[in-house]
Amino acid sequence: MRINDITSNEELKRGIRQFLETAPDIYMAGVSVDTVIFGFHNDKLKALLLRFGNTPYFVLPGGYIMKEENLDDAALRILQERTGLKNIYLEQFYTSGNTSRSKEEVAMELTQKMIGTIPNSNWFAQRFVSVCYYALIDDTKVNPVTEVFFTEVKWFDVNKLPKTLYDHDAIISKALKRLQGDLDEKLVGSNLMGETFTMGQLQKLYEAVHQKKYVRTNFQRKMLSLGVLERLEKQYNGKSHKAPYLYRFTDRK
Amino acid sequence: MRINDITSNEELKRGIRQFLETAPDIYMAGVSVDTVIFGFHNDKLKALLLRFGNTPYFVLPGGYIMKEENLDDAALRILQERTGLKNIYLEQFYTSGNTSRSKEEVAMELTQKMIGTIPNSNWFAQRFVSVCYYALIDDTKVNPVTEVFFTEVKWFDVNKLPKTLYDHDAIISKALKRLQGDLDEKLVGSNLMGETFTMGQLQKLYEAVHQKKYVRTNFQRKMLSLGVLERLEKQYNGKSHKAPYLYRFTDRK
Repeated sequence: MRINDITSNEELKRGIRQFLETAPDIYMAGVSVDTVIFGFHNDKLKALLLRFGNTPYFVLPGGYIMKEENLDDAALRILQERTGLKNIYLEQFYTSGNTSRSKEEVAMELTQKMIGTIPNSNWFAQRFVSVCYYALIDDTKVNPVTEVFFTEVKWFDVNKLPKTLYDHDAIISKALKRLQGDLDEKLVGSNLMGETFTMGQLQKLYEAVHQKKYVRTNFQRKMLSLGVLERLEKQYNGKSHKAPYLYRFTDRK
Repeated sequence: MRINDITSNEELKRGIRQFLETAPDIYMAGVSVDTVIFGFHNDKLKALLLRFGNTPYFVLPGGYIMKEENLDDAALRILQERTGLKNIYLEQFYTSGNTSRSKEEVAMELTQKMIGTIPNSNWFAQRFVSVCYYALIDDTKVNPVTEVFFTEVKWFDVNKLPKTLYDHDAIISKALKRLQGDLDEKLVGSNLMGETFTMGQLQKLYEAVHQKKYVRTNFQRKMLSLGVLERLEKQYNGKSHKAPYLYRFTDRK
């Protein structure tokens, strides 16, 4: 689909017009929120993106902060409004504020094509400094849905991301780097592992997040040296003695 | 000095009136910047604060972002305008956005006392989400100066901070926590150590930043295990053989 094939849509125009009538009274000008939601299950790391209107471009779930709303609360509300996801632990990791991010030409052209020139639509053309949050969740345990402006919500393998708008590629890269650092530091992955797990399952999480393979023995040594894993005694239940050891986190969040 | 002793000042009023006339045209509404400048020399960790007008309260060096200015550039400019400090490496670490931070009563009362009620002074009463940066520098190598609204710029031992306004205490605590994490991770202290240094000098930096004592042998083992230090051969220059080994960073930034 090329940009020229994108046509405007009356329902969308009506929705946007309604939004724009009240937006300056409801939301702070100048500051927005973007969220990078990483999904993991078995062995793949994914990122959750929204299709921008009926275009081939995708964006992060994001939005605006209400005038009387705490920043962290805004992030949770925005994520829920865009994707339906609730009760997700969001970690603030970065605030993006180059002037160039608000001047992304493709995004401006697409918006214009879809909604035309309508009063006050300069709200979208304003400069926004965006406060960015990330989360790591089990993507099989959620069922994201989105609303009219975003026609699709989709998980993408972090190695096969679609075309994105604004500075969202750079924000995803920064989020991934932060997630990699937080994996040891803050055990952000511990909620994905179940109460008990094998070293092999944990290794798959690390390999997906760090996008590289580890040697099994090195990985085990590194993990045990962190001092956060407890090895459980094997239960002799008549099954093979070769069943792998199970572990659990001692400092579970 | 009690709040009641604070009197308004004609020069200050004039300056503020000038600022307020142009501020809405020049600066973004809703977003501000605060900087936490840590100073270290020999063995003490300090933080740089500005006296708020002629009150007994202090604040972080902070300010507003110009409409056509990148966020990181704004942070550098603001730091220079408030303190005269130039060419400081600032690390963004947090964005503070609770609604309560803009409603700090003492700050509002003090501002009112100093500048009275002047047109457009609601600029200061707006809600600002503040993007926070920190730096760690050798405080003996700089000579901070400040301007009329802030009557004093001063280093304080991080254990003996004065009364501050807004959420600046919380921001300083968050900055210290981040500095502690970054000390190993990013070698943020390496620029303070000179080309070569003794293990004892490095230990003093770590003790000041982490606010605790280390056992010499444990500290040395921990540092060497990071794999970033190179031990230099002793120079036999006729002085005592008991002179300590010198080290340097192999991965100096």
